[in-house]
Amino acid sequence: MKAVSIESGEASKAKVHGVNRGISVFDLVLRIVAIVGTLASSVAMGTADQALSFSTQIVNFEAQYDDIDAFKFFVIVNAIACGYIALTLPFSIFHIMKRRAGKSRVLLILLDAIMLVFITSGASAAATIVYLAHNGNTSTNWFSICQQYTDFCQRSAGSLIGSFGAMAVMVLLIILSAIALSRS
Amino acid sequence: MKAVSIESGEASKAKVHGVNRGISVFDLVLRIVAIVGTLASSVAMGTADQALSFSTQIVNFEAQYDDIDAFKFFVIVNAIACGYIALTLPFSIFHIMKRRAGKSRVLLILLDAIMLVFITSGASAAATIVYLAHNGNTSTNWFSICQQYTDFCQRSAGSLIGSFGAMAVMVLLIILSAIALSRS
Repeated sequence: MKAVSIESGEASKAKVHGVNRGISVFDLVLRIVAIVGTLASSVAMGTADQALSFSTQIVNFEAQYDDIDAFKFFVIVNAIACGYIALTLPFSIFHIMKRRAGKSRVLLILLDAIMLVFITSGASAAATIVYLAHNGNTSTNWFSICQQYTDFCQRSAGSLIGSFGAMAVMVLLIILSAIALSRS
Repeated sequence: MKAVSIESGEASKAKVHGVNRGISVFDLVLRIVAIVGTLASSVAMGTADQALSFSTQIVNFEAQYDDIDAFKFFVIVNAIACGYIALTLPFSIFHIMKRRAGKSRVLLILLDAIMLVFITSGASAAATIVYLAHNGNTSTNWFSICQQYTDFCQRSAGSLIGSFGAMAVMVLLIILSAIALSRS
C-alpha cells in the first residue's frame, strides 16, 4: 500500500486525505457515543436492585443484578467494552492526523469485531433473561418475576438500550474503517 | 483507489494480486465452513425433541426446541445466516478472479458484520437458556430442567458448537476482507 500511495498523484492524495480525515473524525465521535452507551448500560444494570416489602412463596425478598449470571456477564462485558473503546481513542485521533494508517486500521477492525461479539453476546444474554422475566415459560415452569419485581425489570430492560446502541455503533465503526481502507 | 492502482508498478500489482487471491481462496473455504456450521446448528436444534415416559408435578411430558423462544430464534437466525453465506459465495469467487474489488469488499464487510451480530445474538440467547436449563436460578425460582430432559439438554447444548464456530469464522472473514482492502 505504501508503494502505491507514494506513486499516486498529489490531487488524488489530497482528496483521499480529506475524505479519510472526515471518516476519522466521525469515527472518534462514534467511539465517544459508544463509551457513553456501554458505561450507561453497565451502571444502570449494576445498580439495579429492588427489595420487596412483602414476600410470597414463589419469590425471594430482594432482586439484584448479580442474582442472575447473564446480568453479571452483561455488566462485566459492558465495562470491558467501555474501557476498550476508551483505549482506542488515541488510535482514532492518530487516524485523523495520519493518512496512511492501513495496518492500524486493520488491527482496529479486528479488535472492533471481537468487541462487537462481546457486546452482542452480553446484550443478547441479558435480553433473553429480561424476556424470560417478563413472559416466563410455561413448558419449563419458569414463571414471570416481573409482576413482583416491576422496578427491577424496568431497570434491567432499560439498561439494554445503551448496549444495543453500542452494538450498532461498533458495526458502523467497522464499516467506516473499511471505507477508509478502501480509499487509502 | 482505481487511480492509485493504475499508477502503481507492475511488480507490486502482481504481488498484491497473488496475496489477495490467496486471501480470497481462504475466504471461500471459510464461508463453506460457516455454511456447514450454521446448517448443522440449525438442524441439530430444530430436531431436538424429547418425550418423557413419566411425568412429575414440575415438568411437562415433552420438550421441543419451539417451546423456548430463544431456541426458535436460534434456529431461524442460523437458517438465515446459512442462506446469506451461501448467497455470498459468488462474491467470494468474484474476488478470487478480480484484483480490484474495493467496493464489493466493503459491502461484504458490512453484510458480514451485520450477520455476525445476528449469529452472535442467536448463539448467546440459546447459550443463556442452555445455561439456565442446566443450572437453574434459585433467586428467580427457575429450576434446572436437565435432570429430566437429559437428551434435550445435551442436544441443544451441542447444537451451539456450530454456531459459535460460525461466529469465529465471521470475525475471520471480516479481517480477511480488511487485509485484502489494505493491500489493494
